[in-house]
Amino acid sequence: MSHNTFGKNLRFTSFGESHGSTIGCVLDGFPPGMKITTDEIKAQLIRRATGQSRHTSQRKEKDDVQIVSGVFEGVTTGHPITLLIENTDARSKDYANIAKQIRPGHADYSYWKKYGIRDYRGGGRSSARETTMRVAAGALARKWLKQHYDINIVAWLAQLGDIKLQSGDLNRVDDSPFFTGELERVPELDAYMDQLRKSGDSVGARIDAKAVNVPAGLGEPVYGKLDAELALAMMSINATKGVEIGAGFEAVSQNGSLHRDEIIDGQFASNHAGGILAGVSTGQDITLSVAFKPTSSLRIPGKSVDIDGNAIEVVTKGRHDPCVGIRATPIVEAMMALVIMDHIMRHKAQTQSNQL
Amino acid sequence: MSHNTFGKNLRFTSFGESHGSTIGCVLDGFPPGMKITTDEIKAQLIRRATGQSRHTSQRKEKDDVQIVSGVFEGVTTGHPITLLIENTDARSKDYANIAKQIRPGHADYSYWKKYGIRDYRGGGRSSARETTMRVAAGALARKWLKQHYDINIVAWLAQLGDIKLQSGDLNRVDDSPFFTGELERVPELDAYMDQLRKSGDSVGARIDAKAVNVPAGLGEPVYGKLDAELALAMMSINATKGVEIGAGFEAVSQNGSLHRDEIIDGQFASNHAGGILAGVSTGQDITLSVAFKPTSSLRIPGKSVDIDGNAIEVVTKGRHDPCVGIRATPIVEAMMALVIMDHIMRHKAQTQSNQL
Amino acid sequence: MSHNTFGKNLRFTSFGESHGSTIGCVLDGFPPGMKITTDEIKAQLIRRATGQSRHTSQRKEKDDVQIVSGVFEGVTTGHPITLLIENTDARSKDYANIAKQIRPGHADYSYWKKYGIRDYRGGGRSSARETTMRVAAGALARKWLKQHYDINIVAWLAQLGDIKLQSGDLNRVDDSPFFTGELERVPELDAYMDQLRKSGDSVGARIDAKAVNVPAGLGEPVYGKLDAELALAMMSINATKGVEIGAGFEAVSQNGSLHRDEIIDGQFASNHAGGILAGVSTGQDITLSVAFKPTSSLRIPGKSVDIDGNAIEVVTKGRHDPCVGIRATPIVEAMMALVIMDHIMRHKAQTQSNQL
Amino acid sequence: MSHNTFGKNLRFTSFGESHGSTIGCVLDGFPPGMKITTDEIKAQLIRRATGQSRHTSQRKEKDDVQIVSGVFEGVTTGHPITLLIENTDARSKDYANIAKQIRPGHADYSYWKKYGIRDYRGGGRSSARETTMRVAAGALARKWLKQHYDINIVAWLAQLGDIKLQSGDLNRVDDSPFFTGELERVPELDAYMDQLRKSGDSVGARIDAKAVNVPAGLGEPVYGKLDAELALAMMSINATKGVEIGAGFEAVSQNGSLHRDEIIDGQFASNHAGGILAGVSTGQDITLSVAFKPTSSLRIPGKSVDIDGNAIEVVTKGRHDPCVGIRATPIVEAMMALVIMDHIMRHKAQTQSNQL
Repeated sequence: MSHNTFGKNLRFTSFGESHGSTIGCVLDGFPPGMKITTDEIKAQLIRRATGQSRHTSQRKEKDDVQIVSGVFEGVTTGHPITLLIENTDARSKDYANIAKQIRPGHADYSYWKKYGIRDYRGGGRSSARETTMRVAAGALARKWLKQHYDINIVAWLAQLGDIKLQSGDLNRVDDSPFFTGELERVPELDAYMDQLRKSGDSVGARIDAKAVNVPAGLGEPVYGKLDAELALAMMSINATKGVEIGAGFEAVSQNGSLHRDEIIDGQFASNHAGGILAGVSTGQDITLSVAFKPTSSLRIPGKSVDIDGNAIEVVTKGRHDPCVGIRATPIVEAMMALVIMDHIMRHKAQTQSNQL
Repeated sequence: MSHNTFGKNLRFTSFGESHGSTIGCVLDGFPPGMKITTDEIKAQLIRRATGQSRHTSQRKEKDDVQIVSGVFEGVTTGHPITLLIENTDARSKDYANIAKQIRPGHADYSYWKKYGIRDYRGGGRSSARETTMRVAAGALARKWLKQHYDINIVAWLAQLGDIKLQSGDLNRVDDSPFFTGELERVPELDAYMDQLRKSGDSVGARIDAKAVNVPAGLGEPVYGKLDAELALAMMSINATKGVEIGAGFEAVSQNGSLHRDEIIDGQFASNHAGGILAGVSTGQDITLSVAFKPTSSLRIPGKSVDIDGNAIEVVTKGRHDPCVGIRATPIVEAMMALVIMDHIMRHKAQTQSNQL
Repeated sequence: MSHNTFGKNLRFTSFGESHGSTIGCVLDGFPPGMKITTDEIKAQLIRRATGQSRHTSQRKEKDDVQIVSGVFEGVTTGHPITLLIENTDARSKDYANIAKQIRPGHADYSYWKKYGIRDYRGGGRSSARETTMRVAAGALARKWLKQHYDINIVAWLAQLGDIKLQSGDLNRVDDSPFFTGELERVPELDAYMDQLRKSGDSVGARIDAKAVNVPAGLGEPVYGKLDAELALAMMSINATKGVEIGAGFEAVSQNGSLHRDEIIDGQFASNHAGGILAGVSTGQDITLSVAFKPTSSLRIPGKSVDIDGNAIEVVTKGRHDPCVGIRATPIVEAMMALVIMDHIMRHKAQTQSNQL
Repeated sequence: MSHNTFGKNLRFTSFGESHGSTIGCVLDGFPPGMKITTDEIKAQLIRRATGQSRHTSQRKEKDDVQIVSGVFEGVTTGHPITLLIENTDARSKDYANIAKQIRPGHADYSYWKKYGIRDYRGGGRSSARETTMRVAAGALARKWLKQHYDINIVAWLAQLGDIKLQSGDLNRVDDSPFFTGELERVPELDAYMDQLRKSGDSVGARIDAKAVNVPAGLGEPVYGKLDAELALAMMSINATKGVEIGAGFEAVSQNGSLHRDEIIDGQFASNHAGGILAGVSTGQDITLSVAFKPTSSLRIPGKSVDIDGNAIEVVTKGRHDPCVGIRATPIVEAMMALVIMDHIMRHKAQTQSNQL
């Protein structure tokens, strides 16, 4: 659970830069015996793909994923599953002008200080392109969770700038590029985004998510708590600035008599806990929220320095994506799936439980 | 970084139950050559101790910490440092009446589902008593960070229920039991707490924290990001429901032209990032916020079940602590220290940097 | 699996120095629900204790182990199990004369180069006293393996200096201080040891071991192979210089037609593999051998230097143990038990197998 | 350090099956700033390639390695370095006849019991083809160790069946396909191998290795000892049955007065320890030996069963490699390099040493 590997019994390692030849991942520890096709993985990749709507970046990637190991005759073997995608729309020449720039709000400064060298092409390793592989690996975890526990995971846009949204009909979040269940508000969102793009500015987003049918008993006190590892997972996604479980920051002003979820007639009467007590799942829905910052790639000039220390102004040319948070929706789902599946495996290892 | 161990090159393992004979921890990987005394550790333990004010639980623990390994002639040796505290005020008889109760909002339900057995005395392993050892180990990390990098870490009460507080004079947070720099508002806080205690209810808290003088370059993209591991650390503390880095959830409604921290005259002009870009520190202050839920141990009866499934009402007798979040302040500091020190070690391992 | 922690789903952390106040360990991830008493642990500790025969060191330790966490009302809870033993016969004054000596063949030189500081009292952390905790933790693993899989683990003295021994009656290895099943050869061994002690010199030993009833399927290709982790475990024991699985170095001169274990009438016709093929158990007995070097603590003077670089002669005074390898027998068994139990847990995590 | 990942601060993950489309590895945590070319990696791959001499298997692989991430403009960036090789000579049809066979001495039985499914084409994941990636990653580690510490690692054939070899001129081990420094004995070895191949049988091998100029202080007591992790590394290589450090099993019959390496005139007078005391390097040469079993793929029929339990005879057709151990030589070197480099990084993390 460090550098480029995530998880414990189910371990996910990603690699590749935005403009390298190939990005990929290794999913290690996955159970043998599950059928999987590249089409099932692509179905998830399309959900996060760029170029799907007029609000996202113009980069066109086919995301033509290949399974190069760990699957034999269409079935997982228990050996490391490797997924590869060739970058086809990575034109390095586009980035020559930023080779020396420190773009405000980007990895440029911190990576340069850390490594003394940086792949400036499209953000290199810091690019959200890396999250493609999370979604790809998440597709396998989601299928397994559905097959074995009927677990469903869904995330949706809960706030876009100042616009707050209800969950609406969560069966329909894939019906618009906004991942909202309030489809009737899509015109409002469209108009907001168009206005934003015209201004050359960007805005943040809040994504809410839940996992349904997660069995009670998942989570490893006290440093592998389910909520703690969900927080790690979410905060590892590009542009994240906050994570809440259940009531989140609202719990600060709640009274205990409200917050504690009483059990009435054998049922939890509320779910302020977000389905997790003391780091362990209760069987209620796992609920969480994630805050994404506005992208720093703007047409509005920003003051900065170059790597030689000269004052510069940075301007992002070409069409840009005024709210990167929206497309994080399937990434949030994928990370939830990977965390929950890993915890099922860890729980089984210790308890030999027949319940799970 | 799982079950009861936290960290990578600096590894912290805690053990012990609220009402067991002994709690303790092992701090492994700590550098050799640092002087440390039990008094230096106790100075931190006193800050989180119960029974310090009329607002906290009455449990009286001397927290008489012993160093039983890893320190020779007052100096760390590079071998595992073990700290032990005997529980002296653990009267198990007090808890006999709750042996079968599932207290709402506590670990009772989820632990019971997970393990099929639970140490019901004072919450067993789920008790906040475990955090004593985080503060103890944190004392060593804080001393090392101060000695080698002049890093200072301070946390303070930023919100108590609906009462929002400014940072005030952070040099004075230890001057009241509220860990506030706004000492002039202590009477207001006292009155609020007295009222709350009379009502038998509880409330949540928000703790803000910052680390000053953290060098640029700490954090391990993309799954060991500094912010991601801080989120893991904070969310592993009892009663946490949310974590923010820098602007946190405010970033959702911020524009990118505001959020991105421009560099003007060679200086960052703002710090919405909280000192971390793309998971790596920038040299600015590391800033974060943590939400703590209200305790569920109330004099107000709560509906629940017992382990046989019978409907019951749960009432916590005796004096209680109406806001457990306040005392989390030194725990937040300790976890920040452990995370930052671990990251310095990890960074050195990879980069052989002369800068750090 | 680094510094002072061993294992993955079952994690063992030991701490404490030879002459510190306390040694101990934390066994994390152990399943809930197993009964365990200190007497069961002590029964194993007595087997490795010093002072049991005239051939071992005179240090008298009661090894009065306490269980201070993770066991409630005599049953494991799933939380970290901590075992502590106070050192009662640790007279530091005995060691003052070696504070500056670099004893040949000991940790003195390498620890001093590594840490720049060393606890010279009885070898500090490098002392075989640490192995007490391996045996203590191993007692829990052995009980669990016996209860759940009827697995038996036994080790025995296979070679003492030039004297080679057969396995003999392995039910009787505890009937002499030599851990031999060839009880009729005990007088020969006694005479050899008496002669050796008179000469002031020491000798090495080879310990053989096997685990019976280990299910097929344990081991995690390709870097968590069962044989690879057994090698790690054995080589982590003090004074080890070699490890063999199955035929070991004899396989070098074997032909493939002999070495490969044919299956005749549905049974393996031989076991040159030592019960492990491609890193995964086959269901045959797991067999291994471990080489222990002769102790370097001798009455015969040895040339060395002190920490100031002066040439010195080092002599170990008092009674010494001319073959430290013999007492390693229960340690080998304990480490096998910890490795095998960890692998059962890891296998269950991935395969959800009903077979195991 | 489990399943398909090896190492701690320097982490190596391999993936891919013998007859999958691609094999590869991810080397994570590697320092930024080192120049590397595919030609430097290929130079090592050629040393282990099949089809180089008449004594090895006929499989012809070009081992045309690509660097697809972690290197920018020819220099390592600090991000995960991914190496890929496409399998070009993987004709699955050749293996159809063994789809149901349990070949004696191979992974067939244990993998099938473990996973309930197996990629039978060329051994799938259990094939020695996986070791290609160890050699590839090892090429980077070797270059770094040479550049920063002038460390040289060399392995050689020390025993072929009953034929024992001296180290000879270790500068010339690459001058014959036998990796021997005793070039004058190559005709003897050739004759032995030809005779063996004619007989349809195989034989084992012992490979010796040493690392020169390794600084003192490497190794992490007590579960990350340098010798313990070298044993893990060696025993993870296909066909290994034994590992020795320094004197190895000879230490069993040595006296302590011989074995302990005295320091005379400020120099170690011998090196029975193999450069490691108490798990930590001393600055002497690190020396070790590895035993490889004879291959089980023989023209001589072997009795076994198929996966339906029917008794069968297994015969390997076509040209075979009568001693697979010989080609393990560069693999042993690569694993030594990866272990030593990881330990340098781990040591730096803890000690901030200026010495290293």
